[in-house]
Amino acid sequence: MTISTAPSQQFASDNLAGICPEALQSLLDANASGHQPAYGDDIWTQKSTDMLRELFQTDCDVYYVFNGTAANSLALASMCQSYHSVICSPVAHIETDECGGPEFFSNGSKLLVGESDSAAALLGKLTPDAVDDLVTKRHDIHYPKPKVVSLTQATELGTVYTVEEVRAIAAIAKRRHLKLHMDGARFANAVATLGVHPSEITWRAGVDVLCFGGTKNGLPVGEAVVFFDRDLSADFAWRVKQAGQLASKMRFISAPWVGMLEHNTWLRNARHANAMAQRLYQAIHGLPGVRVMHPPQANAVFAQLPAACIARLHATGWKFYEFIAGGGCRLMCAWDTQPETVDAFAADLAAASAQAA
Amino acid sequence: MTISTAPSQQFASDNLAGICPEALQSLLDANASGHQPAYGDDIWTQKSTDMLRELFQTDCDVYYVFNGTAANSLALASMCQSYHSVICSPVAHIETDECGGPEFFSNGSKLLVGESDSAAALLGKLTPDAVDDLVTKRHDIHYPKPKVVSLTQATELGTVYTVEEVRAIAAIAKRRHLKLHMDGARFANAVATLGVHPSEITWRAGVDVLCFGGTKNGLPVGEAVVFFDRDLSADFAWRVKQAGQLASKMRFISAPWVGMLEHNTWLRNARHANAMAQRLYQAIHGLPGVRVMHPPQANAVFAQLPAACIARLHATGWKFYEFIAGGGCRLMCAWDTQPETVDAFAADLAAASAQAA
Amino acid sequence: MTISTAPSQQFASDNLAGICPEALQSLLDANASGHQPAYGDDIWTQKSTDMLRELFQTDCDVYYVFNGTAANSLALASMCQSYHSVICSPVAHIETDECGGPEFFSNGSKLLVGESDSAAALLGKLTPDAVDDLVTKRHDIHYPKPKVVSLTQATELGTVYTVEEVRAIAAIAKRRHLKLHMDGARFANAVATLGVHPSEITWRAGVDVLCFGGTKNGLPVGEAVVFFDRDLSADFAWRVKQAGQLASKMRFISAPWVGMLEHNTWLRNARHANAMAQRLYQAIHGLPGVRVMHPPQANAVFAQLPAACIARLHATGWKFYEFIAGGGCRLMCAWDTQPETVDAFAADLAAASAQAA
Amino acid sequence: MTISTAPSQQFASDNLAGICPEALQSLLDANASGHQPAYGDDIWTQKSTDMLRELFQTDCDVYYVFNGTAANSLALASMCQSYHSVICSPVAHIETDECGGPEFFSNGSKLLVGESDSAAALLGKLTPDAVDDLVTKRHDIHYPKPKVVSLTQATELGTVYTVEEVRAIAAIAKRRHLKLHMDGARFANAVATLGVHPSEITWRAGVDVLCFGGTKNGLPVGEAVVFFDRDLSADFAWRVKQAGQLASKMRFISAPWVGMLEHNTWLRNARHANAMAQRLYQAIHGLPGVRVMHPPQANAVFAQLPAACIARLHATGWKFYEFIAGGGCRLMCAWDTQPETVDAFAADLAAASAQAA
Repeated sequence: MTISTAPSQQFASDNLAGICPEALQSLLDANASGHQPAYGDDIWTQKSTDMLRELFQTDCDVYYVFNGTAANSLALASMCQSYHSVICSPVAHIETDECGGPEFFSNGSKLLVGESDSAAALLGKLTPDAVDDLVTKRHDIHYPKPKVVSLTQATELGTVYTVEEVRAIAAIAKRRHLKLHMDGARFANAVATLGVHPSEITWRAGVDVLCFGGTKNGLPVGEAVVFFDRDLSADFAWRVKQAGQLASKMRFISAPWVGMLEHNTWLRNARHANAMAQRLYQAIHGLPGVRVMHPPQANAVFAQLPAACIARLHATGWKFYEFIAGGGCRLMCAWDTQPETVDAFAADLAAASAQAA
Repeated sequence: MTISTAPSQQFASDNLAGICPEALQSLLDANASGHQPAYGDDIWTQKSTDMLRELFQTDCDVYYVFNGTAANSLALASMCQSYHSVICSPVAHIETDECGGPEFFSNGSKLLVGESDSAAALLGKLTPDAVDDLVTKRHDIHYPKPKVVSLTQATELGTVYTVEEVRAIAAIAKRRHLKLHMDGARFANAVATLGVHPSEITWRAGVDVLCFGGTKNGLPVGEAVVFFDRDLSADFAWRVKQAGQLASKMRFISAPWVGMLEHNTWLRNARHANAMAQRLYQAIHGLPGVRVMHPPQANAVFAQLPAACIARLHATGWKFYEFIAGGGCRLMCAWDTQPETVDAFAADLAAASAQAA
Repeated sequence: MTISTAPSQQFASDNLAGICPEALQSLLDANASGHQPAYGDDIWTQKSTDMLRELFQTDCDVYYVFNGTAANSLALASMCQSYHSVICSPVAHIETDECGGPEFFSNGSKLLVGESDSAAALLGKLTPDAVDDLVTKRHDIHYPKPKVVSLTQATELGTVYTVEEVRAIAAIAKRRHLKLHMDGARFANAVATLGVHPSEITWRAGVDVLCFGGTKNGLPVGEAVVFFDRDLSADFAWRVKQAGQLASKMRFISAPWVGMLEHNTWLRNARHANAMAQRLYQAIHGLPGVRVMHPPQANAVFAQLPAACIARLHATGWKFYEFIAGGGCRLMCAWDTQPETVDAFAADLAAASAQAA
Repeated sequence: MTISTAPSQQFASDNLAGICPEALQSLLDANASGHQPAYGDDIWTQKSTDMLRELFQTDCDVYYVFNGTAANSLALASMCQSYHSVICSPVAHIETDECGGPEFFSNGSKLLVGESDSAAALLGKLTPDAVDDLVTKRHDIHYPKPKVVSLTQATELGTVYTVEEVRAIAAIAKRRHLKLHMDGARFANAVATLGVHPSEITWRAGVDVLCFGGTKNGLPVGEAVVFFDRDLSADFAWRVKQAGQLASKMRFISAPWVGMLEHNTWLRNARHANAMAQRLYQAIHGLPGVRVMHPPQANAVFAQLPAACIARLHATGWKFYEFIAGGGCRLMCAWDTQPETVDAFAADLAAASAQAA
């Protein structure tokens, strides 16, 4: 079966990209090794886990699951019971795009949407005050008790929490006896942007559990749940198994992580995607009728475009989402987005924009 | 990172084997196709689904999930509410090896273990009478109401339900208003043994939903849930998504299925594994002290071995499980088990057996 | 053990009142009848069920559960799966005061809060447009699919949906394939206000399931779940049992219903409570600094009071809640609220208000 | 509505009896006290809780729920996560008569049925060895990890664990890091039989949580969940609320407990029921064809009766269950069973037995 490539879709999502060469090579190596123990007792799983511990410079507990919904939902379920609640931003993926996964895995925990001030809200960020408001609002047993704060890093709007911002939220969380969860579907992009050590925006800043995304960064399938607070991972292996998230041929989930972590491929991929977003931003932010919502901090540009431009770009074959919070279009770059593609898109948008103006 | 192959483990489980060449080639092809739509809107998913419909000669609904626990649990949850129950054999994988996955996904459905007559029980099979006994035992609301029968084909003891056996259970199920689920983790091996068309032991015999296993047959990860009764799959896509079983880069789950289904690779793999089990059986069933529990009907030999033999084989590096129901050792063959490996094992067992005798 | 009465608390909630004489007499009668079958096979349960069918002039299915959270949660769970969602108003009891009960019983169904226009929102009502907006907003599998609309009648803000309003929402629900649930914790008060036959604002208007509250209206414990759409109650008896909501000595739950339904006690109680709210409204709505949020339509007055007044009333021993949506105080009347108590409260408020002005 | 008493049903179950006078009087007193705080903030709930603490001579946490299924299920859910398991006897009420309630409330915890030696099994008891076998059988993540042992005291077969037996099981539980739950639906009858202080067979023997049944002993509705290990009851109030088990008019649940606990009514009721079972046993155990399964230790006699006797007794109007484990009939005495009724039943059985012989 043969199929042609589809470059025109390159701004729809970073999960439309394939497997990066380094991850693929590790997968092939793992397959070339004949019979291997199942369920994670293989050397690839050991290796990738060791590498993650090294990466974070701490003796964390690591589990591999199949996708981001499962990673977030299982991590949250390990931190709260059904009658507890999770505080997150209104645009948090766990709230808007996991079809009630967190509620399902926790058997009913409610997500409480924090109301940040408008500046932070536009950036898709939760603020310490928004968290504190929700925690202090009610204490009665007729409402689920807040137990966790969840941050997405980078956010769903392509922005990044600074080290100070993470710390400030962690401080409120600690004071209010909440655990701190980080949805890191694009964690790599945040690290690339901030230029800090991965530990600086995780456990050193007060994060208890990180869902470290690999798929959007070049893996075929699989995310890592990293417990910095190891008390929270008691019996987590049973939870993963029961929830249908334990791969029998685990090496094909973990080996690609080895490829990603070796030689900092994960960071290089992220830097490239981020750079493409910057290139796109530079090329389009001054065009007539184009209103970029904020300078990109990760691998996406969010912009309001004239309806005529959107129609024309779609007609030309370009694919991207329009529905995003605040009315903007989301232009997402991936590890394999080519500068030529960015330039071609920008040229088409410039032409459409000139015509529309 | 390099690693040597580990042929000595080749009888522990069929999920210790790697990816078969045909499945791998499809995965590589899919990766070579650049950006592709996510969440199953890609052409590989369309293609594999069409092929499965052709294979079964019916317009079934097909969903891909990550592993067998998820496939079984989600399929069962689509057929019963929390206050219903599922009838299965005492050695059913859903009962003994999924860590309560079915109970979790259904929010509490109880598994009721059927007591087959001793002949059937030794073969790991459920009988129509065992089903009927459980259904007619109680009708009060203080006990979960039976709603589903679950068969494993091939069974966990390496045996195979005949077409007539499946039909007989389906008849009881129909009469008692139960749905019929088939755990087909080794469905390919059963088809290979019976030499019938796949439809003959599924929907034509009364099966409503089949969990068609691919991993043990040569895939890296991923099983297909095949709904022959399409009423049961209403909104199943939402269920899969919520349960953390929807792959974003779905093509890497579905493309290998294309490779497996093209040119009947799935059946060839199964026939090979079955033949290796027969070869092993022929080589060891007359050895002193060796009591094969029943002639293999699929890809495993179950045999009681003298403790000294077990110890010696393990010391030599051979790996296999001893814990299996009835006290036997399970010697499992895979799609890539080599005749030489079978012969070497048999020779070592013969030597150990002679020494022990 | 003796204890004095506590009239000062009479405006905090209608669930602070005791058992009305008619319900109590039935309970005593039921107790005087010696041994009786358990689990609802007694004649009291039969009788009250027949009476409810007569009351609603239709052959509905009736189940008794212990409280309103259970009634609502189980009713909703019978209408939606975990990956579905329920549309309700932001002040709906199921959203704000059941501690995630609906999410728990349904294993994760999400509540979607409708945004009514401001006039309706101030009255605590959901509008057809608010429902339609939520249903048409998204159709993708990444968000729970709407399956139910839930109305509270009378609402949490003491207002009442007219027959036309219920019908209009039912029409949208039908068009969008949603079931219609009515939280009738204060259903009696709504019927008393509207002066219509109970069937007119339930099944004749398109309601599928009503949770008919008895506790706030004079029962000791117990609510009735009334299924007008009997397809929805398939196996509901098992659901109730599993959920810990089946009383063994059921007669003590159902017999008080007989007392309430005989001679229209339920309606007389509701009329009285409503009249007390009107009396209170008349007495206070013109006082300086007192801003009644809307004329009472059921048994509560919602009013903004000067802080000094609130403090003084509390100091005098009057009890009522201040936290209610929109900032108002809730002054709730019960079946046993005395005119003298209303007058005394109004006098105290008048005095406090004069002093504050 | 008038109804005649039904003395003929007096051996079917102790939950066919009504409310005992002392409990009723307290309920009436509570009702006479006008408005009272809701949700347990009333003085009756405070009083009954204090009395339970005094009764057990320890500062336990006490929660009132509506019935036994809820009490057991919520208590177990507080001790195990969905991927854990609960060890109980094959005749345990949680296994056989709660319609999967424990699995539902815990979101999937599996009940593991212990195989006691035949002597203990005939008495419906779990043994330390049966517990240990299950705990040590498997340690892998493919099977739910045992976390709780549940004993029923008195057992479902009318027998009673001695202090030593409870201690022995508690010792195994402690060694294996299991919590110890006691289903005390008929706890009063066990205390009456053993003649020990209630603390002796609960926390002093190693029990962590007791579900203290009141309904079968003379209450209208409501059981007490008593946490001796207070760490286990963290946030239990939220759990109760979310699960639909928090009574708004709590005083009508708790006040009857006051009546039961004052002047040791609970114990007197239990002694009476036990004495009636002894009287019945003495009257029938030598009759031809009658095989009493074991001398009664609580308030029930289990006996195998000739089919003709059963038919004749039923025809005469006597009601009792036949289905009970081991094939016997269950003859259950209640707090209000009269000696005359026992004698009349015995006489009828004697006549039937003579005729059948």
